[in-house]
Amino acid sequence: MSPVLFPQHVIAKKRDGGALTREEIEAFVRGATDGSWADYQLTAMLMAIFLRGMTAGETAAYTEAMMRSGFVADLTNVKQPKADKHSTGGVGDKVSLHLAPMVAACGVAVPMISGRGLGHTGGTLDKLESIPGFRVNLSSIQYREQVARIGLCLIGQTAELAPADKKLYALRDVTGTVESIPLICGSILAKKLAEGTDVLVGDVKYGRGAFMKDQVRARELAQALVAVATAMGTPMRAVLTAMEEPLGRTVGNALEVAESIECLKGRGPADTMTVTYALGEQMLLLAKVAKTAAEARAQLEAVIADGGALRKFREMIVAQGGDARVVDEPTRLPQAKLQVPLAAPRAGYVEDVDALGVALAALRLGAGRARTDDRIDPAVGVSGLVKIGERVAAGAPLCVIHANDATALAEAAVLLAKAITVGDTPGVAPRLIGEIIG
Amino acid sequence: MSPVLFPQHVIAKKRDGGALTREEIEAFVRGATDGSWADYQLTAMLMAIFLRGMTAGETAAYTEAMMRSGFVADLTNVKQPKADKHSTGGVGDKVSLHLAPMVAACGVAVPMISGRGLGHTGGTLDKLESIPGFRVNLSSIQYREQVARIGLCLIGQTAELAPADKKLYALRDVTGTVESIPLICGSILAKKLAEGTDVLVGDVKYGRGAFMKDQVRARELAQALVAVATAMGTPMRAVLTAMEEPLGRTVGNALEVAESIECLKGRGPADTMTVTYALGEQMLLLAKVAKTAAEARAQLEAVIADGGALRKFREMIVAQGGDARVVDEPTRLPQAKLQVPLAAPRAGYVEDVDALGVALAALRLGAGRARTDDRIDPAVGVSGLVKIGERVAAGAPLCVIHANDATALAEAAVLLAKAITVGDTPGVAPRLIGEIIG
Repeated sequence: MSPVLFPQHVIAKKRDGGALTREEIEAFVRGATDGSWADYQLTAMLMAIFLRGMTAGETAAYTEAMMRSGFVADLTNVKQPKADKHSTGGVGDKVSLHLAPMVAACGVAVPMISGRGLGHTGGTLDKLESIPGFRVNLSSIQYREQVARIGLCLIGQTAELAPADKKLYALRDVTGTVESIPLICGSILAKKLAEGTDVLVGDVKYGRGAFMKDQVRARELAQALVAVATAMGTPMRAVLTAMEEPLGRTVGNALEVAESIECLKGRGPADTMTVTYALGEQMLLLAKVAKTAAEARAQLEAVIADGGALRKFREMIVAQGGDARVVDEPTRLPQAKLQVPLAAPRAGYVEDVDALGVALAALRLGAGRARTDDRIDPAVGVSGLVKIGERVAAGAPLCVIHANDATALAEAAVLLAKAITVGDTPGVAPRLIGEIIG
Repeated sequence: MSPVLFPQHVIAKKRDGGALTREEIEAFVRGATDGSWADYQLTAMLMAIFLRGMTAGETAAYTEAMMRSGFVADLTNVKQPKADKHSTGGVGDKVSLHLAPMVAACGVAVPMISGRGLGHTGGTLDKLESIPGFRVNLSSIQYREQVARIGLCLIGQTAELAPADKKLYALRDVTGTVESIPLICGSILAKKLAEGTDVLVGDVKYGRGAFMKDQVRARELAQALVAVATAMGTPMRAVLTAMEEPLGRTVGNALEVAESIECLKGRGPADTMTVTYALGEQMLLLAKVAKTAAEARAQLEAVIADGGALRKFREMIVAQGGDARVVDEPTRLPQAKLQVPLAAPRAGYVEDVDALGVALAALRLGAGRARTDDRIDPAVGVSGLVKIGERVAAGAPLCVIHANDATALAEAAVLLAKAITVGDTPGVAPRLIGEIIG
């Protein structure tokens, strides 16, 4: 009833396990945006939310307040249905790069605003920026215009997009309050729902190479995402996918772009395409341009077979100022000075490829960020990675290490030799596609 | 094992319910003192501690780190045993003012460093400062010298005393993290154990006029205080006392000093003296100058009867620059311009006197602080308060209101009329002295 909500009272209510009202949640999020709550009050609240949780209703109110803390794109000018996809991130996950043009080529616009992510390897934006000239920092007007014109735009999070999330995420990162399902849910959806998509598909990864190590927690997150997005009027489905070995055969920014181009040419690795089709099917189904998964799959396969998806990718590169010649001449992408194969220590079968171990090697090479202000080296990483269960000859390459520094090369080689196990029995990769939530 | 403890990792450990090591707790408290932890990290940790608790060992390590964050008095120059008393605070609680000289007159030095407290009525320091000229801001050298010379010194918390507590308390106050037993325990004992006392007696109050409303929580706090102080080498006992009606017949700074002087002259109100003797007995027992409670009581009564306690009080006033003539001429204390009796609305018995209601009236008159920077008016308050169970005639005074402002007077009168209930049956005050812990 009171017009003034004192931060300490709102904090104490959550601390004692109470459910906050929409007004209280709005006061908190507004406090993060306009500074009317001190940082030390925001973090006390974040810890209280972490430990006490939020109801579905609270999470929806939180997400909406976060979204409305900044710019919300109006894409009513776009005629096609609009679908986007969000991944919680995994090692070698380059799916957005080729999935977005595939879906766009099927007649569904893909308005995609991505973060850079603080991971062992770069995010979608970092990968795209390895294409010479490619610009990810378009204005909201350019974004709107490009989505309408070519049905596809991949840009970075602008300063105006969910500023409350930017503030709270930075605080969560240094106060041990990252791994909270309602907070993660709010952070992801506030940005995704601000970009103007009609429907959303989530790729929620679990396993040693994922943010969520555990399938139960991943399912919880997927359920929260779907419930909140749906409550906010954006139909959503989430696919649970395993992240134990890297996705595909490359890890590293330019190397992953090259692999995505291979995918668009119909030569993508099996595991990468399995995830790509699973997510693409759901996008087309939710966008109502296909009635069954099989029908959606056929459409996606067709735009690969007829070159429509590759053309859409090229179109996007041109629209965003990049050098589209990389599509036909991948060596125009940044190349590392040292490209050295890692030899198999013995003949046998690949028993295991630990995604986290590979990620740490990529990080050591300079492919990712340990801190937000670290610079990424687009050229470095790993290519030609063996997959679990494959047979190798003694001395045959387990992968090729791409490095710009001999010390980093040596250290990465040691990490990779540890991450890739060769033995007598072929390893069995876990089933890649789990439940579909929603 | 790592020489660097990242705040977010220490926070996450407590967040997940882990027990922190001594090193981790020291890093946290050092972070509060030297700024190496940001405020927003300190508050995330405080909330995690609030919700996850601390073990007895953690609380002791926390208290010790807080104490060592600043100046720790060395009173080895003092020959007598040294005892101090701490009260969690109540309405009309002026016991320290006369208890300290009583105990000192029994040959036990009382080195007392007090806070001002943010309460409805002033703290011990505010009360003492109503004595013209009385200085509470002595240097640590003057403090040490005075304790050695006259066995008694009552001063304020210096900037060097437990600076980590000053920092953390200010943050707790605005982040809903005050009412946590380990945090309260650390805050109280860090300061009390830094003052150099040998033994400590706690007055842990519960009831509507106390910080702890509930006896169960008060007992928990008392047990924590006793366990931690004892573990740190300072024998301690805590007395649980009820705080439902105000203690004594006065509330307000100079008015309470005048009542304490009455206590020293053997004319103190019964309830005030009951609490005074209960605490004094434990101080003499712990200091080992008495073998039984009865013996201790006899010593305390003797120094009142022979004027020794009053002389000690006078000695302290002189030593700290105050006008000792107030002892014989209490009208030399600040006097309010308006002194107006509140008439009983009917004849009957006092059914209830709500300590919190009286406190709010005193606050309205200007006797306490709503914010740390509020100025206190030493003259205002309430005197001649009736006690629960007393008989009153219609129109007889329920109390005398001391005000310096007619508006405040009127508002205080309304509050007091609501706080004091007169009816047909005599109310029964709750038993004042509860368990003794330790």
